[in-house]
Amino acid sequence: MTPVGYAAAVTDAQRDPASGSDVPPTEATAGPAIPAELAVLRSSIDNIDAALVHILAERFKATLRVGRLKAELDLPPSDPGREERQIARLRGLAHEAGLDPAFAEKFLNFIVAEVIRHHEAIAKGEDPLAP
Amino acid sequence: MTPVGYAAAVTDAQRDPASGSDVPPTEATAGPAIPAELAVLRSSIDNIDAALVHILAERFKATLRVGRLKAELDLPPSDPGREERQIARLRGLAHEAGLDPAFAEKFLNFIVAEVIRHHEAIAKGEDPLAP
Repeated sequence: MTPVGYAAAVTDAQRDPASGSDVPPTEATAGPAIPAELAVLRSSIDNIDAALVHILAERFKATLRVGRLKAELDLPPSDPGREERQIARLRGLAHEAGLDPAFAEKFLNFIVAEVIRHHEAIAKGEDPLAP
Repeated sequence: MTPVGYAAAVTDAQRDPASGSDVPPTEATAGPAIPAELAVLRSSIDNIDAALVHILAERFKATLRVGRLKAELDLPPSDPGREERQIARLRGLAHEAGLDPAFAEKFLNFIVAEVIRHHEAIAKGEDPLAP
């Protein structure tokens, strides 16, 4: 962590939110002063969260296409064998990345529950990604 | 989507899992033949999931440092104002990315619940990321 990083984060924290982008970093609207190192970490967490939101958006685009393709081809909506393989693979990747494998499995189940909600919306003729 | 992409995915699906990496794509161990387009989509979903796992691992490293820093500086573990700002920002990003903002909020709450679990482990003198 360089002094440049610290200075940049503190500057971010003090920036007028009205002058920034449409979606400013959350610390731009913070109240009381926060320690510089905490500001740096929060700025990284905010960047990571933005990445997660955009990657999740792509994942749901892909599962939406899977849902439509399965409906077209008259394939069963769920595939327990694939889900088992996904869980085993994600647990392995989590272990390598230093993430709790049990959390990785819980995370996949959380996402899959939303995918099922989308597929149910498709079955009802609704667009699950419509605003 | 190009024929190259299709061909590559089908080849992936047919590859002997023993000859691949430690964590092969999940379709490498698939049973019955699956349509080429479905194999392509699943291969993208697997890549996205690997990205999510690695980004989540980084996020928990950052929140772990936040937890330790707050303990050192005797700062309160939770900051409702920051959480409100995070939710508002993530909902905005989700809207721009075509992700359901309600899901983005649920997702953040899901992650924060795990962060709290980590911070409780720290308070008990345990390492929440220990295997």
